[in-house]
Amino acid sequence: MRCINVELQERRYPILIGSDLLQDEQRYPVEDGGRVMIVSNPTVARFYLKTVTDTLEKRGCVVDHILLPDGEKYKTLDSLNLIFTKLLQGNHGRDTTIIALGGGVIGDVAGFAAASYQRGVRLIQIPTTLLSQVDSSVGGKTAVNHGLGKNMIGAFYQPTAVMIDTLTLNTLPKREVNAGLAEVIKYGAILDYEFFEWLEKNIDDLVALKQEALQHCIARCCQIKADVVAHDETEKGDRALLNLGHTFGHAIETHLGYGNWLHGEAVSVGMMMAAALSEELDHISVEDVARLEKLLARANLPTVSPDGMQPEDYLPHMMRDKKVLAGKLRLVLLKSLGQAYVAADTEHKLVLNAIRRCSQAD
Amino acid sequence: MRCINVELQERRYPILIGSDLLQDEQRYPVEDGGRVMIVSNPTVARFYLKTVTDTLEKRGCVVDHILLPDGEKYKTLDSLNLIFTKLLQGNHGRDTTIIALGGGVIGDVAGFAAASYQRGVRLIQIPTTLLSQVDSSVGGKTAVNHGLGKNMIGAFYQPTAVMIDTLTLNTLPKREVNAGLAEVIKYGAILDYEFFEWLEKNIDDLVALKQEALQHCIARCCQIKADVVAHDETEKGDRALLNLGHTFGHAIETHLGYGNWLHGEAVSVGMMMAAALSEELDHISVEDVARLEKLLARANLPTVSPDGMQPEDYLPHMMRDKKVLAGKLRLVLLKSLGQAYVAADTEHKLVLNAIRRCSQAD
Repeated sequence: MRCINVELQERRYPILIGSDLLQDEQRYPVEDGGRVMIVSNPTVARFYLKTVTDTLEKRGCVVDHILLPDGEKYKTLDSLNLIFTKLLQGNHGRDTTIIALGGGVIGDVAGFAAASYQRGVRLIQIPTTLLSQVDSSVGGKTAVNHGLGKNMIGAFYQPTAVMIDTLTLNTLPKREVNAGLAEVIKYGAILDYEFFEWLEKNIDDLVALKQEALQHCIARCCQIKADVVAHDETEKGDRALLNLGHTFGHAIETHLGYGNWLHGEAVSVGMMMAAALSEELDHISVEDVARLEKLLARANLPTVSPDGMQPEDYLPHMMRDKKVLAGKLRLVLLKSLGQAYVAADTEHKLVLNAIRRCSQAD
Repeated sequence: MRCINVELQERRYPILIGSDLLQDEQRYPVEDGGRVMIVSNPTVARFYLKTVTDTLEKRGCVVDHILLPDGEKYKTLDSLNLIFTKLLQGNHGRDTTIIALGGGVIGDVAGFAAASYQRGVRLIQIPTTLLSQVDSSVGGKTAVNHGLGKNMIGAFYQPTAVMIDTLTLNTLPKREVNAGLAEVIKYGAILDYEFFEWLEKNIDDLVALKQEALQHCIARCCQIKADVVAHDETEKGDRALLNLGHTFGHAIETHLGYGNWLHGEAVSVGMMMAAALSEELDHISVEDVARLEKLLARANLPTVSPDGMQPEDYLPHMMRDKKVLAGKLRLVLLKSLGQAYVAADTEHKLVLNAIRRCSQAD
């Protein structure tokens, strides 16, 4: 088992990474005999709810659960209120523990419920998708959506612990594993050349869900994100680098309608576009772009723009990005493989060129 | 003008107390030209919304407002969502400032909105009732109610500043001023004998809303509460003393139905019962009880149980109090005037005696 400590000003919490963690009752930071509310969805609950419940009962805990419908569209104040109602009906007090068992949506909603139930109760995150394991479980962001904007209502709230059991990836659809690998490759590209090289050697083992490779990989990603977040808790500086490929990717997701391509798939193509643009600006070489493309392709990820989306379709979406300042596009680009930076004002013509280079017609 | 600093671990904020504060644009901790959302209710807005808006516009601020219906029953997730919708429709970003302009309900709802909009924006509390000025504006508690419990959803969230303009009390119904004085007298009784004596000399000036007396009094109350909260942010110890008279008082509020007696009126009678019980236990003298009674009466507060409520009606309500532990009543009582303590298990017969002594039939 590996353990990464996330250090945030006065707060600090461990991320445990291993296999068969869920069955190990000693790993759960709960009090013997305490109350627990597991928040999950039917898909994940089918595989892991019984295991987690039985394991906690060995500690004498009284374990309730609530299942929320699966999907981003249920990340709402209404879902939040269902959790509160269930907690109150069960007379859960301030000493209860909420466990978020699922992917990013469950982590966000259950996390915000823990932040606000009776002004804050204990929270354990058990992310069960590769994406949530390497991304949303680190940093303490919780939120629900509002009809007028995503993630507009929430809190920064740190869990007592994050427990990542890599065996849960065995029940994750392959396509979602691959989408998670896009974010993994991103960490190498933006901040860690050595890890990028490690990925080039080990990507097949990751795709094959070899436990040792997965645990090394997830620990490295969590460490990189924990370092970035610790230095930039309020999202002013380095944290922006985590958005490599995301401005292009959001354009794809918006154009296709959310849910047609997975987030990681759109980010994969977006990273290719950012790399092509970095090459146009003479930062990285054609060979570097080819290395990134090859790595993404080995993870079964798309590297060219979706069918039917024209290069001209991108910029209008991109100009609505939250990072646009005073009408100027701000993009995360690569100085070199393993070193990203924020480009404050890139010529639209060059951006369009880069998009063209990653489009089907080429 | 007076200034009390509330010190809470890493956070610290000032409470400004003065007259004509609302017209003084320099007192508002906002950025020149920044966005502001004032949250208020129609009753308070009629008197002060224009003043606050005009004053902030002198700083170049762009000022929006939203009025929530008046009353505890609107302290809900739905009201909260109205605030979020208004903020999003106006494109308010993370750099906006929410101003809570009103009594305790507005402070609680607007405070939680500030805590959770985009994971936290700046908050200024402008309490306009005596009760909120001496009580709920200190300590950072924010919350909304749930159908199954009051204040069940919320956050600990500290404002950037609290601005108490004592002139706002001129438009507060006299009955509410008096109810606020019950909490003022409570501070003297539980923790500050010198302040209790000061109140005996100055209560008439407070009832008459003399500015100098009000400002001294509010500053003293805020300082006492700030000291208690600083030592006991998580509500385990001393903070319980702030509940003198509240267990008896809640029984009255519940028995009569919320809203028939004001909270402060019920607390006034509750303090008399706690004092009578303290005397039965030989802690304080008959003269001390009479001093408290006289002071409350001079603030036009009730000192005996309401018509039609029998002494036997109290205990069943009191046993449902949050402070009951393992079936044992825990009451805040007086060791002496100016020194309260928590009595862990008082004989029900003595409690009933004390209630009888403060009942109409006597």
